[in-house]
Amino acid sequence: MQPIKSIRPFIEALGTEGWDIMYQTVQSIPPGYFIIADAKRGDIGNTSALYARAFFEQLNAHALTVAPYMGEDSVKPFLNFKDKWVILLAHTSNPGSADFQLLESKVTHRKLYEEVICKAKTWASAQQLMFVVGATRADKIKSIRQLAPDYFFLVPGVGTQGGDLDEVSRHALTSECGLLVNVSRSVIYAASDAGFARAAALEARKIQQQMAGHLSKLS
Amino acid sequence: MQPIKSIRPFIEALGTEGWDIMYQTVQSIPPGYFIIADAKRGDIGNTSALYARAFFEQLNAHALTVAPYMGEDSVKPFLNFKDKWVILLAHTSNPGSADFQLLESKVTHRKLYEEVICKAKTWASAQQLMFVVGATRADKIKSIRQLAPDYFFLVPGVGTQGGDLDEVSRHALTSECGLLVNVSRSVIYAASDAGFARAAALEARKIQQQMAGHLSKLS
Repeated sequence: MQPIKSIRPFIEALGTEGWDIMYQTVQSIPPGYFIIADAKRGDIGNTSALYARAFFEQLNAHALTVAPYMGEDSVKPFLNFKDKWVILLAHTSNPGSADFQLLESKVTHRKLYEEVICKAKTWASAQQLMFVVGATRADKIKSIRQLAPDYFFLVPGVGTQGGDLDEVSRHALTSECGLLVNVSRSVIYAASDAGFARAAALEARKIQQQMAGHLSKLS
Repeated sequence: MQPIKSIRPFIEALGTEGWDIMYQTVQSIPPGYFIIADAKRGDIGNTSALYARAFFEQLNAHALTVAPYMGEDSVKPFLNFKDKWVILLAHTSNPGSADFQLLESKVTHRKLYEEVICKAKTWASAQQLMFVVGATRADKIKSIRQLAPDYFFLVPGVGTQGGDLDEVSRHALTSECGLLVNVSRSVIYAASDAGFARAAALEARKIQQQMAGHLSKLS
């Protein structure tokens, strides 16, 4: 499988036309790329099932990010699709992640994001489920890896948000299990003039080579 | 203002055509109805801002449901729109709501949904913010009302999900503050044959009259 491209459905802001543009964009991606719809859905079961159809069948994405707040029956409908992945929000990369994700349970002494990981592991194997763990949480990523040694992490926050790719890789990239490092804004906003294609390609290549360096250390 | 109609964007499952149908549906609603997009969005700031534009400006909904997991900077962009409402998930009506929403903080001894209410009250007044509190939580709705005496609650779970409208109204409808009771499936699935319009109207009227009875006791 070739490197990753991530699709963020922000063009929903353009209305119906935005959806058209998104479908056309996804259709123009050559085979062999892993397509992530970073849509952060999550609703009661019957609605989640319809969201799953929208992203997995209509859009034909391989993976979808899902918000865990509503619990098991809001996540499970996304797991009923063969060869599709759920990427559950655990510890996100934004400042507000501290508001609720760090709340520590009186009973288990685990933080909310740790509870999310521990419970979700009972819902699906590492063949169907990954977790969002922000690169801006590099100090914690080692203990999060211990909590879920077999599961892939989707790691946003490298680039514009200030996350350190080297530190994240050192702590969470193992010979058993990997990372999907999602770099969006520093690539898609690499330039706003006619030189965009080249500037974006250079930025993406830079990150890809950094990752390749870390991967080569493992083999 | 007339009674409430709620829009659930499940037709996203139909892809671009679904969005067209949704826009047309919303446009066909006469003026004077309060339109809620029950889309449960929530993402990092720049993406939330674009979701807000999609629902408040493109779709022209009056209110949007928002998931709190990612914290303050994922919610605030939705609050930058004049005469628009954020309806934040607090204690939802589905079985999975027990998975994380009931996690009790070691520090404050408040449950996660109580933390969400207490923090969000510092982000916006009752003129911009409401909370989702499921009717299936009727046993708790009295204490939730004490936590947020001035804020409207959006109450799903009456009807198909088994919530008791009378009990909810008794505990949470006050002369200062109200409830938006959202009954979806028992209305939209009232019949599947040619008699649908009449069956749906009868079901909606039944709920409306029950609510009117509770409102009249307050005046």
